[in-house]
Amino acid sequence: MREQTFVLAPDSFKESMTAKEVCVAMEKGLRRVYPAARYIHVPMADGGEGTVQSLVDASGGQMRQLEVTGPLGLPILAQYGILGDGMTAAIEMASASGIQRVRREERNPLLTTTYGTGELIRACLDQGIRRLIIGIGGSATNDGGAGMAQALGARLLDQQGHELPRGGGALSRLAQIDTAQLDARLQQVEIIVACDVTNPLCGEQGASAVFGPQKGATPDMVQELDAALGHYADVIQSQMSKDVRHIPGAGAAGGLGAGLLTFTRAVLRPGIEIVIEYAGLRDKLAAADIVFTGEGGMDFQTKFGKTPHGVAAAAKAAGKPVIAVTGYMGEGIETLYDEGIDAIFGIVPRAAALEELLEQGPYNVERTMENIARLLRLRD
Amino acid sequence: MREQTFVLAPDSFKESMTAKEVCVAMEKGLRRVYPAARYIHVPMADGGEGTVQSLVDASGGQMRQLEVTGPLGLPILAQYGILGDGMTAAIEMASASGIQRVRREERNPLLTTTYGTGELIRACLDQGIRRLIIGIGGSATNDGGAGMAQALGARLLDQQGHELPRGGGALSRLAQIDTAQLDARLQQVEIIVACDVTNPLCGEQGASAVFGPQKGATPDMVQELDAALGHYADVIQSQMSKDVRHIPGAGAAGGLGAGLLTFTRAVLRPGIEIVIEYAGLRDKLAAADIVFTGEGGMDFQTKFGKTPHGVAAAAKAAGKPVIAVTGYMGEGIETLYDEGIDAIFGIVPRAAALEELLEQGPYNVERTMENIARLLRLRD
Repeated sequence: MREQTFVLAPDSFKESMTAKEVCVAMEKGLRRVYPAARYIHVPMADGGEGTVQSLVDASGGQMRQLEVTGPLGLPILAQYGILGDGMTAAIEMASASGIQRVRREERNPLLTTTYGTGELIRACLDQGIRRLIIGIGGSATNDGGAGMAQALGARLLDQQGHELPRGGGALSRLAQIDTAQLDARLQQVEIIVACDVTNPLCGEQGASAVFGPQKGATPDMVQELDAALGHYADVIQSQMSKDVRHIPGAGAAGGLGAGLLTFTRAVLRPGIEIVIEYAGLRDKLAAADIVFTGEGGMDFQTKFGKTPHGVAAAAKAAGKPVIAVTGYMGEGIETLYDEGIDAIFGIVPRAAALEELLEQGPYNVERTMENIARLLRLRD
Repeated sequence: MREQTFVLAPDSFKESMTAKEVCVAMEKGLRRVYPAARYIHVPMADGGEGTVQSLVDASGGQMRQLEVTGPLGLPILAQYGILGDGMTAAIEMASASGIQRVRREERNPLLTTTYGTGELIRACLDQGIRRLIIGIGGSATNDGGAGMAQALGARLLDQQGHELPRGGGALSRLAQIDTAQLDARLQQVEIIVACDVTNPLCGEQGASAVFGPQKGATPDMVQELDAALGHYADVIQSQMSKDVRHIPGAGAAGGLGAGLLTFTRAVLRPGIEIVIEYAGLRDKLAAADIVFTGEGGMDFQTKFGKTPHGVAAAAKAAGKPVIAVTGYMGEGIETLYDEGIDAIFGIVPRAAALEELLEQGPYNVERTMENIARLLRLRD
């Protein structure tokens, strides 16, 4: 039998393994049965947590760290990546302004700021990059990207000509936007925002109402924040002639979507599509006999922009079989069989504490892949 | 592709599914991919818990209930099975005299009795059977089968000619064994004891020292019980001319092995061999394309007389591939690949409470089997 080629294109398993670590474990297990096969690693992501790491690993790039302003103004350490081509950078706004960076009892979307995200962007521009990929999941903020804009040189002034303080609450006092000092490089750099939501900026389906509560907003705060973003959009409309209120995705990341659309040349695209392109998945698929994918948890929601679904779609377009492994087989997982995933296996070996399972992730992936290979070998 | 034949030969999954229920769930899952295949159910066991149910299910027999004397003298409900041939019965001594039938705080192997096991045996004899299979795992007793013998008509007398009270402690006062009233049918019935241990009756490797503690014996009680069984064996030797002390397995079930060897025509055989024979596994294997097996938990100890190992050995002798599924993948499970098991899959879908997993057993087996079939189908 001729040597087979296996493409390994999983997402990370949250709190357990990066996508690259999953690839390594997958290969280890498969090698016990197919030591001579060719293994192509394509660490994947869907625009959410782990996207920068996956893009860096997939392209042979580099991770970098930077001290920035955290969501509540204190300095924190954030990360960004420079991809293998040397001219593309990638950031996750959550690294600087994410909900995970705020202690639960301190959550307050009236005050949290995207200023640090702006500092991350500037650091990337300083590297001379031509393209920036931005993941915007997991935010702690509801400031329409105002903080980001200020970090990049825009001035947001109240009636007295004073710079607005940070946070979504202050936007209600916005009287003037001055972009004279806005970083000029923003107009020359391709900015691709990984965005899977279609929420407008305001209203029932808007940033504040839909995502405010999970960031700590009470019903009163939701109303206040929604009005503030609405006013912000009005000022943008009247002073910059841009109508960003209703663009699908404007409401993402507490309105950061609207901010990026306003102050940069950003385009919004589904995260999985961006990663498939910049990880070079389609080329790598061409020679595959089987494509393996997976993610920490899979269920009926996987078909909405998640890695296993995106990988399966690309693989099926190339006529390849797809096998997925996961740590959490959730409700409706069987709906995925009609979405291009041929078989799904759980990696959990027994009833055990979650912490132990997360720690044993690599070993469990390895063992599961070995047995999948043993099964395939029966029919070789 | 011609229609395939799948033999389903799992053990029970303790506290979750009988072996037959596992077969049903296996078929359900496989049918989603191979609706036209032929499915042969062979509910298996290894002589331990679930053996009677599996033999009854595999042979199309019947379960029956009977009130008997429990391990501490109180009446309890026990079960036995009449196999499909109408002339073979099967019992598990644990049904009448098992450790599960004694409250933890009341455990006392000085007092527990196999009397109820004797009553179960008599009930089987009353059915006119010609062969009796006895599983002897899980006992609460350490009385050398004395209680059983008394229930079957033997008289065990002290120096004053009084019948000994029940329990292993009283054996130290044994002066005379009178078998005049011992049920004559015991000499005309094949008795096959499912026994996987090789312990002698007494000493360091004997019943009391090795298994006494788990039945509640303190070190002092172990000494007392060991001496009592030694004396019992001496009386059997001098009055019945039988030397049962050193026969491998005499120490099984608190010395019940010795009692059966003494008072009946019992032969001891590994449990899995008995079940393979009486479930008719070898004939059923002949037409198989693939053999599926499994058990609640599997680890390196599976090779010591457990169902998946026995099934794999029989299947490999017939040149068949073997795939196992299990709820608990334990230490050293990879040693089973060299023991005839081609691939092993866990059925647990995610981190969850044991109780929930036990309850979801059938669904988890079904889903896992479906995915195994989906994988096989890729290579059809």
